[in-house]
Amino acid sequence: MTVGPITTVFILGGARSGKSRFAESLVVSSGLNRHYLATGRAWDEEMQARIAQHRADRGPSWTTHEEPLDLVGKLAAIDGEDRVVLIDCLTLWVTNLMMEQRDMAGEFLALADYLPRAKARLVFVSNEVGLGIVPDNRMARDFRDHAGRLHQMIAAKAAEVYFIAAGLPLKMKG
Amino acid sequence: MTVGPITTVFILGGARSGKSRFAESLVVSSGLNRHYLATGRAWDEEMQARIAQHRADRGPSWTTHEEPLDLVGKLAAIDGEDRVVLIDCLTLWVTNLMMEQRDMAGEFLALADYLPRAKARLVFVSNEVGLGIVPDNRMARDFRDHAGRLHQMIAAKAAEVYFIAAGLPLKMKG
Amino acid sequence: MTVGPITTVFILGGARSGKSRFAESLVVSSGLNRHYLATGRAWDEEMQARIAQHRADRGPSWTTHEEPLDLVGKLAAIDGEDRVVLIDCLTLWVTNLMMEQRDMAGEFLALADYLPRAKARLVFVSNEVGLGIVPDNRMARDFRDHAGRLHQMIAAKAAEVYFIAAGLPLKMKG
Repeated sequence: MTVGPITTVFILGGARSGKSRFAESLVVSSGLNRHYLATGRAWDEEMQARIAQHRADRGPSWTTHEEPLDLVGKLAAIDGEDRVVLIDCLTLWVTNLMMEQRDMAGEFLALADYLPRAKARLVFVSNEVGLGIVPDNRMARDFRDHAGRLHQMIAAKAAEVYFIAAGLPLKMKG
Repeated sequence: MTVGPITTVFILGGARSGKSRFAESLVVSSGLNRHYLATGRAWDEEMQARIAQHRADRGPSWTTHEEPLDLVGKLAAIDGEDRVVLIDCLTLWVTNLMMEQRDMAGEFLALADYLPRAKARLVFVSNEVGLGIVPDNRMARDFRDHAGRLHQMIAAKAAEVYFIAAGLPLKMKG
Repeated sequence: MTVGPITTVFILGGARSGKSRFAESLVVSSGLNRHYLATGRAWDEEMQARIAQHRADRGPSWTTHEEPLDLVGKLAAIDGEDRVVLIDCLTLWVTNLMMEQRDMAGEFLALADYLPRAKARLVFVSNEVGLGIVPDNRMARDFRDHAGRLHQMIAAKAAEVYFIAAGLPLKMKG
């Protein structure tokens, strides 16, 4: 088993940009035990189908966890030097926190504070959502703001940051 | 006439990012015979005016073709070692295929399979549409998914991939 | 006081991408006298709160100006070799011009023509808004087109252009 340096990687990209696939390739090439932490809730059939498809695509060598809200608690529970955790994705976590009317700034700070304490390698995936027209409704604007602030915090702590478009990674840090 | 290597180039960018102009500059500098393949349908006056303006901007040294659906068939029909074809754009082709309820995966695969067989240099232009807020309606979400998957397929086959913003190219591959 | 070369810098990014903060860091590191030119109008409480927060974040070492429409006139009025002006942001200026039904092409050209004549260093910030789904309404599409054209013009004149995502700058020119 090849154990690489313990670092946080942050992968940002648009819808269907290939960011999850790129994240999975980093996980596989790390040689560490593979853990997948899904933050999404399967609200409807469209979402259920996507989740099932992703799980099938990854195959049986992954341990899958689901946690829509307590991201830090779950990461601490499954922490370990021999593993890598792919967190997919931060934007769904933000959505869940907003629906539960959590203290966003507090939750983000707790996650940022946790990162240097993690023993596992962490690979975060998130959707860039701030490059279109300003949304009509306040909630969507708030969501963009929360996601953007969280992305800045994670990118500041990460050892490597990639922007993905058309399946191709562009290294922005590291 | 300078005949460069026969390769596929993929140019991705936002609305009014200057991606068509950059594509045209690549075509002109290739020294090959210039062909323009428009995939857009002129549904209304707004669209007609845009198409006419683009055509006037390119000037008379280009041969213009129009094909909203059978992209591979048209590319094969106008193929040749002495020419370069600018396909503008893939997102409009995706729109047309969706309206005709075609088998998207099959169409995309046929195009990807064609690329290595082309004798002409091919320069594809497309709009990145996946970096805003998740759209409210299902059709727009499906469109983002289709466009994103196609972009990944074309980028994987292309020799060079550029992301364009504010008229400036950022090389992502090649 | 460190007086750097007199150049125009253009910083493009999404919502909450950290573009204003990056622009401010360039201004501070220039060693020049700091001027802030706000183009936004405080239409509602949400906007007022954002403006007040930004002003508080910058602190008292900045001279703040407000000008929603006559950008060239204001830049000429506060011009000087000992200073740097952060213009935040071009997209709000475009919005204001559209609301007043100004001649957009004429306004953009006047700004582009002014840039080489400025004695102050100019740091422009703007939102990239063209990377999402095509908006439903005509005005939003026109806005995207105007913003995209202006971005290309400013980027062509600028000595340095940065694309910002997750707080990280990606140099596209310079």
